[in-house]
Amino acid sequence: MTDPAIPAPDAPGQPLPSPELADLYRGFDKEQLVPLWTEIGELMPAHPRSRAQPHRWSWRELLGLAERAGTLVPVGRGGERRAIALANPGLGGMPFATPTLWAAIQYLMPGEDAPEHRHTQNAFRFVVEGEGVWTVVEGDPVPMRRGDFLPQPGWSLHAHHNAATTPMAWIDGLDIPFQCGIESQFFEFGRDRLDAAERTTPARSRSEHLWSHPGLRPVSKPGPTAATPLLCYRWEHTDAALTDQLRLEHDGDPGTLEPGHAAVRYVSPTTGADVLPTIRAEFHRIVRGVETAPRREAGSSVYQVFDGSGSVTVGQETWRVARGDLFVVPSWQPLSIRSEASASDSDSGALDLFQFTDAPIFEALGLARSTEGDPR
Amino acid sequence: MTDPAIPAPDAPGQPLPSPELADLYRGFDKEQLVPLWTEIGELMPAHPRSRAQPHRWSWRELLGLAERAGTLVPVGRGGERRAIALANPGLGGMPFATPTLWAAIQYLMPGEDAPEHRHTQNAFRFVVEGEGVWTVVEGDPVPMRRGDFLPQPGWSLHAHHNAATTPMAWIDGLDIPFQCGIESQFFEFGRDRLDAAERTTPARSRSEHLWSHPGLRPVSKPGPTAATPLLCYRWEHTDAALTDQLRLEHDGDPGTLEPGHAAVRYVSPTTGADVLPTIRAEFHRIVRGVETAPRREAGSSVYQVFDGSGSVTVGQETWRVARGDLFVVPSWQPLSIRSEASASDSDSGALDLFQFTDAPIFEALGLARSTEGDPR
Amino acid sequence: MTDPAIPAPDAPGQPLPSPELADLYRGFDKEQLVPLWTEIGELMPAHPRSRAQPHRWSWRELLGLAERAGTLVPVGRGGERRAIALANPGLGGMPFATPTLWAAIQYLMPGEDAPEHRHTQNAFRFVVEGEGVWTVVEGDPVPMRRGDFLPQPGWSLHAHHNAATTPMAWIDGLDIPFQCGIESQFFEFGRDRLDAAERTTPARSRSEHLWSHPGLRPVSKPGPTAATPLLCYRWEHTDAALTDQLRLEHDGDPGTLEPGHAAVRYVSPTTGADVLPTIRAEFHRIVRGVETAPRREAGSSVYQVFDGSGSVTVGQETWRVARGDLFVVPSWQPLSIRSEASASDSDSGALDLFQFTDAPIFEALGLARSTEGDPR
Amino acid sequence: MTDPAIPAPDAPGQPLPSPELADLYRGFDKEQLVPLWTEIGELMPAHPRSRAQPHRWSWRELLGLAERAGTLVPVGRGGERRAIALANPGLGGMPFATPTLWAAIQYLMPGEDAPEHRHTQNAFRFVVEGEGVWTVVEGDPVPMRRGDFLPQPGWSLHAHHNAATTPMAWIDGLDIPFQCGIESQFFEFGRDRLDAAERTTPARSRSEHLWSHPGLRPVSKPGPTAATPLLCYRWEHTDAALTDQLRLEHDGDPGTLEPGHAAVRYVSPTTGADVLPTIRAEFHRIVRGVETAPRREAGSSVYQVFDGSGSVTVGQETWRVARGDLFVVPSWQPLSIRSEASASDSDSGALDLFQFTDAPIFEALGLARSTEGDPR
Repeated sequence: MTDPAIPAPDAPGQPLPSPELADLYRGFDKEQLVPLWTEIGELMPAHPRSRAQPHRWSWRELLGLAERAGTLVPVGRGGERRAIALANPGLGGMPFATPTLWAAIQYLMPGEDAPEHRHTQNAFRFVVEGEGVWTVVEGDPVPMRRGDFLPQPGWSLHAHHNAATTPMAWIDGLDIPFQCGIESQFFEFGRDRLDAAERTTPARSRSEHLWSHPGLRPVSKPGPTAATPLLCYRWEHTDAALTDQLRLEHDGDPGTLEPGHAAVRYVSPTTGADVLPTIRAEFHRIVRGVETAPRREAGSSVYQVFDGSGSVTVGQETWRVARGDLFVVPSWQPLSIRSEASASDSDSGALDLFQFTDAPIFEALGLARSTEGDPR
Repeated sequence: MTDPAIPAPDAPGQPLPSPELADLYRGFDKEQLVPLWTEIGELMPAHPRSRAQPHRWSWRELLGLAERAGTLVPVGRGGERRAIALANPGLGGMPFATPTLWAAIQYLMPGEDAPEHRHTQNAFRFVVEGEGVWTVVEGDPVPMRRGDFLPQPGWSLHAHHNAATTPMAWIDGLDIPFQCGIESQFFEFGRDRLDAAERTTPARSRSEHLWSHPGLRPVSKPGPTAATPLLCYRWEHTDAALTDQLRLEHDGDPGTLEPGHAAVRYVSPTTGADVLPTIRAEFHRIVRGVETAPRREAGSSVYQVFDGSGSVTVGQETWRVARGDLFVVPSWQPLSIRSEASASDSDSGALDLFQFTDAPIFEALGLARSTEGDPR
Repeated sequence: MTDPAIPAPDAPGQPLPSPELADLYRGFDKEQLVPLWTEIGELMPAHPRSRAQPHRWSWRELLGLAERAGTLVPVGRGGERRAIALANPGLGGMPFATPTLWAAIQYLMPGEDAPEHRHTQNAFRFVVEGEGVWTVVEGDPVPMRRGDFLPQPGWSLHAHHNAATTPMAWIDGLDIPFQCGIESQFFEFGRDRLDAAERTTPARSRSEHLWSHPGLRPVSKPGPTAATPLLCYRWEHTDAALTDQLRLEHDGDPGTLEPGHAAVRYVSPTTGADVLPTIRAEFHRIVRGVETAPRREAGSSVYQVFDGSGSVTVGQETWRVARGDLFVVPSWQPLSIRSEASASDSDSGALDLFQFTDAPIFEALGLARSTEGDPR
Repeated sequence: MTDPAIPAPDAPGQPLPSPELADLYRGFDKEQLVPLWTEIGELMPAHPRSRAQPHRWSWRELLGLAERAGTLVPVGRGGERRAIALANPGLGGMPFATPTLWAAIQYLMPGEDAPEHRHTQNAFRFVVEGEGVWTVVEGDPVPMRRGDFLPQPGWSLHAHHNAATTPMAWIDGLDIPFQCGIESQFFEFGRDRLDAAERTTPARSRSEHLWSHPGLRPVSKPGPTAATPLLCYRWEHTDAALTDQLRLEHDGDPGTLEPGHAAVRYVSPTTGADVLPTIRAEFHRIVRGVETAPRREAGSSVYQVFDGSGSVTVGQETWRVARGDLFVVPSWQPLSIRSEASASDSDSGALDLFQFTDAPIFEALGLARSTEGDPR
């Protein structure tokens, strides 16, 4: 679209070529104008035709490169984070997983600190393996462990420190591409180094003391909040919730999303709504041998395999996926996921996937759409 | 106010007596009219002057009478429930704890069923002691145990059955007086007896399988709901949340409502708001030797002592309270609670209180007010 | 219900009489307790059975008494207002039109001031005839004229002054009974006399300068407000809106509530919701010869005939009504209104009615219900 | 950013160059990865640095080109509309006024029809001069006249027909760039030609019959709606509202946005919120000789001069502007507008400007920011 060929004159609704028309088009150029009638097919398609491509990244490759960066690239003020972003092959080399979502592997060596800063971009961490790093959000140190989901609302001061003797890697998700697109970004440095009190390593954050009790909120904290005050959603709760859904299904009661497919959404305890204003995060468990019904959604997603293995079909692409692998589902591309029928010894017996999407943007603005079953 | 003495003519703003005035007042009577000027002091006081009185009920007496009712009064269709309501001495013999709130002890003998019905009145159960009864809400059997809070949204079909070999008592809270006042009540019988599937005695309700995981909601259940879908808030979570608040306070972090006073509000996981449209429920823990600051609120409350002992001052009244005792705080009466400094052997070391109020009505309609510190 | 006869023992679900039972009931009395099983029919009826009665007040009688009060009763501090309230015959002599709503005629002699005060009760004025009085709300003088509706949110300071050479009467509506019931009332005196700047008589209030332009709001006033900032809804707009609805109906387009029955709701320009948190106000126009379908609603209404004549059926009662007459519709009583087929010379050709109700309370708390067509 | 120069190694936080580092960067490329540390300055700037440039388009030039297109370019299915879009010089030739907003001149010859279609893109028309065209939205013909603002919610079927004997031009505003960015677009053709009933030319739309009465809504249309149901906001109301604000200011009362600067926002009568989920529209009147205080906002705007003349400063640019001229304000660029001190004969005596912005997107997602006074 950046260099639009003018539609052929026999294309529907197009003017006949003439010297006058060519002159008119030159006039448009000169005055910084572009006609709709030559562009409408690109600008207003019948349904979303994403510039992003379905793509999968191998966790093994990703982790290997992160490890090498661990020795070659310092972490400090200026570069800010040792994070390596998924760059969708359809997005011209930009470090964007989808047109709205950023996904990166972040890597911290033993004893390292990532310096404090804050930004309007909403963010989260998700841990597919390892432990030992604390993320410190507004002075509250939060331990990160396998399976934990850690949202971090925009404009919160945050830093990370690795208190372990081994490196640790995790996934960052942000709305960087979306905020680049609408030009809403603000950024500020915090302190270069956390003070001692913040470099402590408590087993639970203060936010969990206050907010991680089901259906209970502190009376001292009235009112809804724009983003979640709970800074860590622990794996044991996620796992238990999925197990409970499948138990209900087993007993003949509703609860799962479709047969053999349990799913939970991470939500704010102050509103029951998405944890972040621009990002939805969910966890899906697909029982062995089950294949999900194809489904399209307006808006894009990034998935990471947490456990198990299977195959995934997005549009025309099909991949085998295993622990740690990431893949993207562009807007309106049909998605279906099949869990391996026979699992390896190490598997828990299901395909477990973490997912994040830009759905809150679409819903807040009246743009959400989906279609289920056989994709058209 | 039902038989208003006409204010003396030297009262401010009153007319001089005369035969013409007397004739005018007779004309009002005849035409079903009442002047404002003689009534305004009652109708529009400077602040709420509740008809209800501060009052305490002894759990020992209450339970003794309930036990006697257990042998003398059947449970069945027509009477519906073996429930005995607190009747505030200021409310003319009506079975109303406050002008808006109903509180009753309900008692069920071994093997008894309370028949199914539904009503627009919002309700809950709170269990101060015992176990063995299941409340069955829309076909979902929910076990009741000490410390559990069980909300039940208006118009849900519900029944109870005692599967134990001993009687069980608990507290019912409803908005019956409020709905009587505004005349919004609807009521329907359900089935006279639950079928076998509903008389099962699972350890956890289906609602807990779906909704009792902190910060997680089933993807299969979109959207906020008017009342909570979680039918039981278990004691272990409440206790842990209060313990966590006091631990934060001990570590120098905010979290408690005031020093030595932890408090949680029961909320809907779909909205973070009150569990019921007309009733707020909270649990308060006051550390030994602590006295809460006097506080007034527009709106009324009922408290039940769950554990510990202490003394309570409401307006001009002060009582000693111990486990199971109930008391009411009328609108705008100042309340202060003092936890016993030295506890008996059986105490957990704090004064634990369950509370419910009509605050959601006041907040929804822009009428909430409170004042803290020394009451005026 | 204040003196409940104990149900006969052969009533459904009642215990057999015995000395022990009598003793138990004495024990309840002594301990300020009341059993549910003897009261449930009153407390939890199958549908609302209002204590209020359908009743009509004649404007001619009402105005005559108000005129007499004009000469006999002063207006000033203490009595506050020369207002005479409708007292529903079912409500024990209380000055309540329904269990939630107050309606009164207020009367001001030439040159009189009604002193400034404020209260949490939400209020409005509606003018069936006359002009010359300004109501001054938070310092903004608002002229009152036939057909105008003037809402006044709770806790606004307000006073009235009659700048004309003739007396003026109008209708006040408030939520006094509701706020008495839940005990939420606060009241404060303002100044005894308005200063000169406030006793001016502008043709339009400042609130109308800012807020009376359709679909437009001042950029200087962001955010929704709890109650409407527009202090007067002028008759010419109401009349035009009703005329437009009937014109659409005439052209075959939808718009009216039912054939020949146009209706508008007064709403806040900042939210599109009801003007007051507890009171809904509407204006209905019923074309000559049309009869509205019977309809029940949970909640109560007061109507005043603004123009035309007809007959009204509420439950078992039917009355002829004409300009100025008021009538009440208790909760869940079926209502039907018939417009006179042939109108008198002075009529505009339709039956015009102003209505106010407690519907926002019911809707905010999830208690709204209605049934249309043939009432059950 | 599409061809990012790798930051120099002495840039803050950058690794030292080495063969290993070069090899690592090649590994990133191969695996479709991009490091954060080389990109962060572009992706996460301290404040928005818009790709868009401040730019002004001359109405005279624009209209001249549109007139030529009127004779050379047909209107019909395929091209859909004879619309010519502003292409911001910073946005690479794309027909985008700002990164989120589309603005175009549309031109219709006498007797022409623009065919019916619908799309998820939210749209509006604003008329700076002329009349004679009806836009038909969901079958409701709406006349367009100078000063009118005509919102059109996403997914409404719409067509236009010129019933006059002269051509007519107007401005279209849409959220095309935003929806391109997030990939949410759906589009469908309607009928190729309106039927006779829809080609009528009523003086007012049906939507105005129902919704254009201040503070009044049809009882037959309950509930809030996502976008406004009012399809035309007439000039006479806008003009009156601005006049009223300035009159209040003249009388010493608040109401204007700043001294000599009146402003109204077009809002939905069902919610009081912005007319469209993604677009805010306002009208500003700046009194002769007044200069507005510099102001920055996160998010972008397009302005069109409706009347009067003056000068505008956006960032480093200052232009003279007169009737019809359009200009854009990129995100976080300071804006100040000065109204001509002495106006020409044809002027109304003030600088009148129509504005539209992407503010609802920013507000819905918690990203709104602005700073007033001296820009930093």
